[in-house]
Amino acid sequence: QSSVTISGILDVAVRRVSNDGVGSANAVVSGSNSTSRLNVSVLEDLGGGLKAGATLEHGLMVDTGAVATADKFWDRRATVSLMDDRLGEARLGRDYVPSYSVWTRLDPFSYVGAARSANLISATPTGPIKSAYGSAANTTVRADNTVQWLLPSGLGGLEGGVMLAAGEGRDATAGRGRVVGARLGYSFGDVSIAAAQTETRNSLTTTGSFKDGVLGAQLQLAPVKLGLAWRTFKLADSKQALLMASASSSFGAHEVKASWVRSNFSGRVGSTVIDANDSTQLGLGYVYNLSKRTALYGTLARISNDGAAKVVVTDGPAGMAAGGTSKALEAGVRHRF
Amino acid sequence: QSSVTISGILDVAVRRVSNDGVGSANAVVSGSNSTSRLNVSVLEDLGGGLKAGATLEHGLMVDTGAVATADKFWDRRATVSLMDDRLGEARLGRDYVPSYSVWTRLDPFSYVGAARSANLISATPTGPIKSAYGSAANTTVRADNTVQWLLPSGLGGLEGGVMLAAGEGRDATAGRGRVVGARLGYSFGDVSIAAAQTETRNSLTTTGSFKDGVLGAQLQLAPVKLGLAWRTFKLADSKQALLMASASSSFGAHEVKASWVRSNFSGRVGSTVIDANDSTQLGLGYVYNLSKRTALYGTLARISNDGAAKVVVTDGPAGMAAGGTSKALEAGVRHRF
Amino acid sequence: QSSVTISGILDVAVRRVSNDGVGSANAVVSGSNSTSRLNVSVLEDLGGGLKAGATLEHGLMVDTGAVATADKFWDRRATVSLMDDRLGEARLGRDYVPSYSVWTRLDPFSYVGAARSANLISATPTGPIKSAYGSAANTTVRADNTVQWLLPSGLGGLEGGVMLAAGEGRDATAGRGRVVGARLGYSFGDVSIAAAQTETRNSLTTTGSFKDGVLGAQLQLAPVKLGLAWRTFKLADSKQALLMASASSSFGAHEVKASWVRSNFSGRVGSTVIDANDSTQLGLGYVYNLSKRTALYGTLARISNDGAAKVVVTDGPAGMAAGGTSKALEAGVRHRF
Repeated sequence: QSSVTISGILDVAVRRVSNDGVGSANAVVSGSNSTSRLNVSVLEDLGGGLKAGATLEHGLMVDTGAVATADKFWDRRATVSLMDDRLGEARLGRDYVPSYSVWTRLDPFSYVGAARSANLISATPTGPIKSAYGSAANTTVRADNTVQWLLPSGLGGLEGGVMLAAGEGRDATAGRGRVVGARLGYSFGDVSIAAAQTETRNSLTTTGSFKDGVLGAQLQLAPVKLGLAWRTFKLADSKQALLMASASSSFGAHEVKASWVRSNFSGRVGSTVIDANDSTQLGLGYVYNLSKRTALYGTLARISNDGAAKVVVTDGPAGMAAGGTSKALEAGVRHRF
Repeated sequence: QSSVTISGILDVAVRRVSNDGVGSANAVVSGSNSTSRLNVSVLEDLGGGLKAGATLEHGLMVDTGAVATADKFWDRRATVSLMDDRLGEARLGRDYVPSYSVWTRLDPFSYVGAARSANLISATPTGPIKSAYGSAANTTVRADNTVQWLLPSGLGGLEGGVMLAAGEGRDATAGRGRVVGARLGYSFGDVSIAAAQTETRNSLTTTGSFKDGVLGAQLQLAPVKLGLAWRTFKLADSKQALLMASASSSFGAHEVKASWVRSNFSGRVGSTVIDANDSTQLGLGYVYNLSKRTALYGTLARISNDGAAKVVVTDGPAGMAAGGTSKALEAGVRHRF
Repeated sequence: QSSVTISGILDVAVRRVSNDGVGSANAVVSGSNSTSRLNVSVLEDLGGGLKAGATLEHGLMVDTGAVATADKFWDRRATVSLMDDRLGEARLGRDYVPSYSVWTRLDPFSYVGAARSANLISATPTGPIKSAYGSAANTTVRADNTVQWLLPSGLGGLEGGVMLAAGEGRDATAGRGRVVGARLGYSFGDVSIAAAQTETRNSLTTTGSFKDGVLGAQLQLAPVKLGLAWRTFKLADSKQALLMASASSSFGAHEVKASWVRSNFSGRVGSTVIDANDSTQLGLGYVYNLSKRTALYGTLARISNDGAAKVVVTDGPAGMAAGGTSKALEAGVRHRF
């Protein structure tokens, strides 16, 4: 028995971003509730509790028709798996790193849209990510050339996995790095906790590996889900620590969600002290589900910066000075198929 | 209720182009009867006269296997819509501009192939299009970042819509521009008329917006459909006016079609007078439908140029001098699925 | 009656390559048993023994999510066909050249993976391929802009076809060339023989066409299939001759296969004598079929070089000196859908 499924999500929104001192700008943006994508999934039951499967995920921009990552059409995922009911899953290809897998579930905005925690995680500010990758692709979300083993389901709330990625020359410019990572999560009743660590070595990490560690917990308190998560990026003497507190709730066709994310830089890059360059983001979101597949949504976000930090919501006017505040609101529609 | 449809058109032809003074060349070309494409369409009935839908259209080259527009995989269309039976359709994403939507229906060659009216609409000659876009993507066919409202069907022959596109920096080099447009059409008995206006501002339109206006009419006279259409492109002191007269007819498996298109430049670009640089194209086509999906076709085209104009049918030998004549014939096969 | 089929193969492996003097490297690689791909096939029965069909084949990399050939998404094949039961098939578009079609069937490794005969067929060594194409796309596998006629099936073991490709400027840098080719094969009982010739002219073949000739035979001897094949590339005074001997066998879920390939350069490029630069490759493979669709496989390969030759299995450490030996082993999983 074998099946092929074509599915996807198309999501587009109108966004307005105001950045201190440089005014406001409007944009049409793709994937603010859920990343726009097209997926091909294959599953074959080989009998005896063994399955073969494969997944291709293509990221796309509804606003422009472009691929999300130029020349990496199946940028979101490209994997082939063998899955055993008792032994778990062996998975090879391009996939999410363990630290991201834990972190994104703790972000009520799923790492996308105006209020995504990703706004504070980029290679733009001077810090460990920029030092380890420059402007090339980094491994804070996905890695190429990975080999994974994932725990089977049915372990009473326990889940997790380990990942290795072949460095294949470790050329940072080409986006290659050797990755070692693991994650473990446990759910008991209304509480779930999870932790992950991912380490990467490439041609720029000459003073030790780039370390990406996550720890988080969620609590279902009556109709409200509360979350708290820490993530730290480290390279040599520089460190970026993120703290994210969140709350979300669904009632009928309605969803409301909020997150508060604090980015705290410390240490130095070379002789540049980065301690003062912190940022704080507040996000509020509302989703109205027209059906299981189609939703309308609106989001508010506000980022305030200290020191040399000038983190902004994307698609706003360029050129905000360090220490400025970036504000955004967006409204959009998301359709799953 | 929800459905996903994968459809498309694959069309390939052999073309021979002869250009004055530089000889002839043969080519295998893609999409001469209908652009080669692959589509994903999604439709969900939300009840109460409300539907959600999305469309992705990928343009491709059957002759080479390449994407039609590099790094813009879904170059033809990428939109998400909410459709209400009485209120009409709200549509967001990359789509056709109003002026093109009206114009292409009036071209019996559907803007493609050796005899397409598009031969006379390009950024190559000095004129308003080149001045407004340079060699970057222009908005004479589609625009990114659009928000549209389209009239519902069932208005007794009336149809139309309005479009706004976020400029997102208005960087002409990146193909971005702020677009404002509208179209309106009306059919009564054997006659239909339509008009559209689309205006774009980007970093090159410093002296006012680029204006693209269309007016056209079609008359069904027994088995023959006759059409007449005007289109004008304007920027500052330069203008290009197109007049297209056409006739087409279907009988059984056969279709014949003819078009005559005149391009008339006037005014000047800076101190360069462009008045004399006119071109005229004559096209003749025949289509034999093997089935509803599969057709064989043949096309003849001839472009004559005046002044500094050197418009040619594409894929011919390079280097024709100004004022020369370009002639082409092609034969191909088109399959819809 | 018309049908659309979406199918494909996803194949990923772990490979270790050791190159003389530069050590070993590990890699995750795509398509070592069968090239990873996604296909769209269309077939319409027009009645009276006539069919229309079209095929799009996209090559992809499971290890990185990238397209196999940048900006040539449908790099493997993009064709439209009319097929008549008695007259055969007319096919237009991008497709395999005749010489490749014959050669690849004679390679038990299907031209892919660590032990592929393709290792010895590349533009890297000084010789006819490099002289005719430089570092641009060559026509030893596929050609753009082709027109083909293929013999119908049901000719009692006879098959074959002819190919012409429009040169479209013959710009070698753009991967364009004028191609003329043909192939013919015949099967009688346990023996099959086939021959092909493909000639290309582009802007670099100023001293005559690039010639690619293949001759091969296969013999089914009880459970073992034996094969012998010759392929020669010629341009002006330079020649590369390949001899490939192979054996393969299937029993139950198991397949074993072996190939020995010898590359023999002769003549000269300009004043550079290339006679001594020969290479020999030995490949051993085992495939275990978990089902008709899913297989596990392992491959061993060893390439020894003479003279200035430094042919290697791909994805190993760079910089092996001329005359060195390259060794590889890989293990992977392949899933067809």
